[in-house]
Amino acid sequence: MNFNYYMPVRIFCGRDCLVKNVDYISSFGKRAIVVTGKSSAKNGALADIASAFEKAGIKYCVFDRVMPNPTAENVREGGSAARRFGADFVVAAGGGSPMDAAKVIARLAKGDAEDVFSLGGAAAEDVLPMIHIPTTAGTGSEVTPYAILTDRVQETKRNVSSPAFFPRAAFLDGKYLRGIPHDTAVYTAIDAVSHAMEGMLSVRAGALSDTLAKESLHMISSEFSSLTADALTDEGRDRLLYAAALAGMVIANTGTCAVHSMGYSLTYEHGAPHGRANGLLLPDFLAVCEERSPERGGQILGAFGCKNAFGLKELFRPLLGGREQIGDDLLRKYAKRAAANKNISNCIVRFDEEDLFRVLKSAVGK
Amino acid sequence: MNFNYYMPVRIFCGRDCLVKNVDYISSFGKRAIVVTGKSSAKNGALADIASAFEKAGIKYCVFDRVMPNPTAENVREGGSAARRFGADFVVAAGGGSPMDAAKVIARLAKGDAEDVFSLGGAAAEDVLPMIHIPTTAGTGSEVTPYAILTDRVQETKRNVSSPAFFPRAAFLDGKYLRGIPHDTAVYTAIDAVSHAMEGMLSVRAGALSDTLAKESLHMISSEFSSLTADALTDEGRDRLLYAAALAGMVIANTGTCAVHSMGYSLTYEHGAPHGRANGLLLPDFLAVCEERSPERGGQILGAFGCKNAFGLKELFRPLLGGREQIGDDLLRKYAKRAAANKNISNCIVRFDEEDLFRVLKSAVGK
Repeated sequence: MNFNYYMPVRIFCGRDCLVKNVDYISSFGKRAIVVTGKSSAKNGALADIASAFEKAGIKYCVFDRVMPNPTAENVREGGSAARRFGADFVVAAGGGSPMDAAKVIARLAKGDAEDVFSLGGAAAEDVLPMIHIPTTAGTGSEVTPYAILTDRVQETKRNVSSPAFFPRAAFLDGKYLRGIPHDTAVYTAIDAVSHAMEGMLSVRAGALSDTLAKESLHMISSEFSSLTADALTDEGRDRLLYAAALAGMVIANTGTCAVHSMGYSLTYEHGAPHGRANGLLLPDFLAVCEERSPERGGQILGAFGCKNAFGLKELFRPLLGGREQIGDDLLRKYAKRAAANKNISNCIVRFDEEDLFRVLKSAVGK
Repeated sequence: MNFNYYMPVRIFCGRDCLVKNVDYISSFGKRAIVVTGKSSAKNGALADIASAFEKAGIKYCVFDRVMPNPTAENVREGGSAARRFGADFVVAAGGGSPMDAAKVIARLAKGDAEDVFSLGGAAAEDVLPMIHIPTTAGTGSEVTPYAILTDRVQETKRNVSSPAFFPRAAFLDGKYLRGIPHDTAVYTAIDAVSHAMEGMLSVRAGALSDTLAKESLHMISSEFSSLTADALTDEGRDRLLYAAALAGMVIANTGTCAVHSMGYSLTYEHGAPHGRANGLLLPDFLAVCEERSPERGGQILGAFGCKNAFGLKELFRPLLGGREQIGDDLLRKYAKRAAANKNISNCIVRFDEEDLFRVLKSAVGK
């Protein structure tokens, strides 16, 4: 039994938990910047923030210009807005893009930086306190120290990480998931599945992360048919949101594997939504893991109620739409990029560039 | 789904994790006070601290005068030692008594206080950073914000609690459990069982604490026959230590119920070790819970592999030695005291004074 574990985020879970706990939020100051996307918080979260902050006398501005897969320029714009407003703390409301962007904005609020990718390892005193309100059940960003930003120079998405990027608190309220488009709901849930499964494949996996990962997979599995049938109840939304947070707690401690690094290319180069990209790649990636580490593969797939990686592929296939058919040249480029990513050594199963190419080919090849 | 969760302690788990992570420890300063009992850290932990601190150039003094069930005077003595030494941080090594005492000592290191029971809610800036090294698998103090001290005036044990009492890190290494007496090993494991079960009975129980509690109970259950046969392997010790930490993470969020408050009287007035006191009371307490909330009772007992509360009593009985036979007058006094404890309202099953008396009578009555 050998592992490290750290997850200092305070979790509030339940209906109207934001409004009910505004006294706690008030401890962070009197002026907040709300970081969100164009529509991501308009499904109730923004209204709750408004009513909670009015009650508590907290002044706030809204920066709702976070783009999907935010870039350096985009977060710098947010940082500048935070500085102009004199924010004491940051409230992130939305899916992975606003929640990740908010972490770097919380750092830039204390001073601009030309190279935002150099902000990994930012010191706690240089980052404003943050509270995160997820409005999708997937990313788990609300309980991780990671911010994934798009790098136009390196032509991929990159992880900017610091213990100081753990939010102070996460507010999990399934009601904010009510209005999200069906495909987003499905893709984000698949993202959470990928987090839990990749976390179990990590060399840093341990007893505690395994317990959380298995619970997450069980819970998503139990809601999966309602989810795909677009028949989720509010209770089901709560369970998916909680399961996504569990999977976030997993990767906060284990990191992800090559599914994520390969997926970044599908997102950057082909516009595949992040969860969908992972869903396309995960079964073929797991097929190799299952072959080389059958016991672990069985535990992982079994926790999601699948007999094997083929079963997972069958389950995901109808949900992902017509799959990309990408030529070998591009796939070799993506394989090379993923093989160079440091998370390649994070997996208990060794994948070389050729292995990654084969996974890509089988998943999205011509 | 409705719960709050917070557990900011960094966990290092595995063989020699203390020595391997001395760089992390160094971040807290150059002078440490090691808080321990007369013998509790002599089973390897103190030697590891010495070698780790020598390597890191950390100077330290040892306060090894923590008594079982420490009193106000005892922790004030420790606080005075910390001030004299000019400690930057506190290292607690031992079972519940040293680990709990260390929390209050970490506060007193910044200034004496006449009434240590008033230190609940201490502010973070008034408490030295702490790292905790459990040498028994029971208390879970290494991951809780609680310090239980003996109050000679109120004639019971009292909980002094503050979020600032969460240690910065816990180091879980099963090798430190090798030398502990068999009865201590059994009693402390029963204490962990009690934490997990009382946590599941708490009105503050939620999905996450339940997951941790069930995993803890499964794990202790799987080692219980080796434990009682005094045939634990090192791997088994690791598992028990981890399970006790899980149960600690549970009560950090749920608190305990009346088993603990009744148990304090058996410890204070009759010298029953804490875990043994809980073991004497828990089955009869659960019998009432099972009767009034059969579904929850079944989940709790089932997670430990017991059919019912009677099964738990049968399992514990041979491990606890000849049971106390206490007269009704005293039991009525203890029931009254427990009924006045604020944790009486923490249980999903309502217990009035008469109910508590009946539990006490059945467990330790004449």
